[in-house]
Amino acid sequence: MTLSKMTREEFAALDAADPLAPFRAEFELPEDVIYLDGNSLGPLPRIARERVAACVSEEWGNGLIRSWNDAGWIDLPKRVGSKIGALIGAEPDSVIGADSTSVNLFKCLSAALALRPDRTIIVSEKSNFPTDLYMAEGLSALLGGRHELRLVEDPSELPGALTDDVAVLMLTHVNYRTGYMHDMKAVTDAAHATGALTLWDLAHSAGAVPVNLTAANADFAVGCSYKYLNGGPGAPAFLYVAPRRQQDASQPLTGWFSHKTPFAFDHRFTPTDGIGKFLCGTPPVLAMTALDAAMDIWARVDMDAVRAKSVALTENFITLVEERCAGLGLMLASPRTPEHRGSQVSFAHENGYPVMQALIARGVIGDFRAPYLLRFGFTPLYTRFTDVWDAVEHLHDILESSNWDQPKFHARAAVT
Amino acid sequence: MTLSKMTREEFAALDAADPLAPFRAEFELPEDVIYLDGNSLGPLPRIARERVAACVSEEWGNGLIRSWNDAGWIDLPKRVGSKIGALIGAEPDSVIGADSTSVNLFKCLSAALALRPDRTIIVSEKSNFPTDLYMAEGLSALLGGRHELRLVEDPSELPGALTDDVAVLMLTHVNYRTGYMHDMKAVTDAAHATGALTLWDLAHSAGAVPVNLTAANADFAVGCSYKYLNGGPGAPAFLYVAPRRQQDASQPLTGWFSHKTPFAFDHRFTPTDGIGKFLCGTPPVLAMTALDAAMDIWARVDMDAVRAKSVALTENFITLVEERCAGLGLMLASPRTPEHRGSQVSFAHENGYPVMQALIARGVIGDFRAPYLLRFGFTPLYTRFTDVWDAVEHLHDILESSNWDQPKFHARAAVT
Repeated sequence: MTLSKMTREEFAALDAADPLAPFRAEFELPEDVIYLDGNSLGPLPRIARERVAACVSEEWGNGLIRSWNDAGWIDLPKRVGSKIGALIGAEPDSVIGADSTSVNLFKCLSAALALRPDRTIIVSEKSNFPTDLYMAEGLSALLGGRHELRLVEDPSELPGALTDDVAVLMLTHVNYRTGYMHDMKAVTDAAHATGALTLWDLAHSAGAVPVNLTAANADFAVGCSYKYLNGGPGAPAFLYVAPRRQQDASQPLTGWFSHKTPFAFDHRFTPTDGIGKFLCGTPPVLAMTALDAAMDIWARVDMDAVRAKSVALTENFITLVEERCAGLGLMLASPRTPEHRGSQVSFAHENGYPVMQALIARGVIGDFRAPYLLRFGFTPLYTRFTDVWDAVEHLHDILESSNWDQPKFHARAAVT
Repeated sequence: MTLSKMTREEFAALDAADPLAPFRAEFELPEDVIYLDGNSLGPLPRIARERVAACVSEEWGNGLIRSWNDAGWIDLPKRVGSKIGALIGAEPDSVIGADSTSVNLFKCLSAALALRPDRTIIVSEKSNFPTDLYMAEGLSALLGGRHELRLVEDPSELPGALTDDVAVLMLTHVNYRTGYMHDMKAVTDAAHATGALTLWDLAHSAGAVPVNLTAANADFAVGCSYKYLNGGPGAPAFLYVAPRRQQDASQPLTGWFSHKTPFAFDHRFTPTDGIGKFLCGTPPVLAMTALDAAMDIWARVDMDAVRAKSVALTENFITLVEERCAGLGLMLASPRTPEHRGSQVSFAHENGYPVMQALIARGVIGDFRAPYLLRFGFTPLYTRFTDVWDAVEHLHDILESSNWDQPKFHARAAVT
């Protein structure tokens, strides 16, 4: 066993100098937990607890039906959307909060395919988050099987896959397993050069890394708000349509909230103008209130500071794991270069499942992704550098004390 | 002005003898409000406030990601579905809580059309709740415009509309404006006799009137849980698929929650068995927890008692309005015969909008539906007979004291 060249004191000093450190106090975090799973479910913002309680007792309990207007429930999808939009470089009135990521992807993919009626290929990655692929499969079948889902195995294959019959390039910006991050602008440019539209899934990007949809010239995007945004379990998702696409775009889930005059109760459908046409049914007010409250924290956050700390956390984690756990069967499964990495780090280990179970038993909560991945999310608003140190100590102790065989598998080299 | 032949004392005596009266204490109801709008948004069940608070603080705040298993979040769609299913005569494992009514209608209508591939007609009513028609329109366009939405103007036209090219008969059981209630069994039989499938919207039925989907031999159903079920603003909706249809049915919104093994993260979609294949994305846990709590009240409710009180409330309301407000420009717009009426009563008045505004200003909360309808919902779990009395007094006072002209319009005779 080699002693680490870094010290816990150095990590504590980083915490002391951290400009984002005060945000931690805005979240409920159990004392006995090191939470490295905010990329699955963000923790409870104290303000969300207060606002949900007020929404339940005052707005629902006391205001009853009047709260649709008096408490502004009716505006929640756009209000939440504006707050999220500000964080991902979206133009005004181009983002709404609504439904699930899956449903929103269905809407956006439908709209994009309709804008490219003569093209039949949807390009994505085999390693994309599965629900995105499932939704594309479901839509494709509904449209009569005329479309083909072309899945690349590696990002390097994307340029070759972008032939002139591609309607849509549908990618998750940051990969859920490895944390690999695409260059959104470069990839969007490549798609546009062949006449294809882009549909980005920002599930592991919003609140995790700087995103600028406007600068990237993106067409459509969807994303999840219960991960880095801390909107609560199963919080409503979001959806972006570039202003230049809104006029011509239409989506098939034409519920009454997307109607021009929903309370006229006309039996014929007339879509409203702008991003509102991508709404569908009645929004889940309690869930959206928690998200709305959580987004108020983000209004005070500098995403460049988040990125700087995120890189420092993940770099230190990788360095420390590779120092402290050398020879214990771990292999980095995330890009080593920070510019290709989101705000998570995955390591492969042959006994990944029991290792993660042992970590969780010690209060170090990460994720396991079959068959081998230990996945750790780093969330600068509340993760401390000393959390990184302590988590690695636990990981080291677990690996060293166990009688697992040396790894028998060779993980495919991580994308860089 | 004629004095009413009934007295408030008689109404108070009905309250004293009401077996459902104790349920009122389980809801938060503002002191200064007579709430006749539980058919738009049910009030706050005290147990829902407690359970949401615990879900936020304990399950989300303390349990974090572990609560998907430890607090049973993962089972919420089926748990909520079972509770709703018990109330609407559904077979075990045939109902889920999920998404919005609009989205669920899209799933069910897609599935039904796919089961009748050689048929192209969807029959519904022009007076159906508009979002149902809009969703059918959106789906039809997505399918290439091969389907036609055939809308009848009156329920009496349904038999003639059920030709042998009808794929689906899609109806709302209780009309949102008039409260007209279809005979679900008879209409379903008529549809089946022509080979069509049925899709019932139970938005104004679940918790309002006895429903027995099994006995009616229904195929598909959807419904809203924020009205009579008191699940909270924008609460997740529900969806029913008859067990005999589940094997062959498929729906296009194939998100990861409908996958056979969602946490295997396979890139190919394989639907799960049973009703679970009608799920889509991650459920909104906070909203679904409120609904789950609200449904625990219903487990102790006898729907026959609810129906008996509902009929008594609506009958008394109609009688009292027609006595006390005779000559003041009101015309009954709901069926006069209780067996054709849900749990609401609508009256048309030329100045319906300002009349309802005046009622609301006095704390009597009903709904206005353009152009003329005053709509009053009667919810036996918490509406008292004396509320009916007092509401009619307010209505009388408003109508008598105003200088509105006598009505210039003649409402179409209400369906009976």
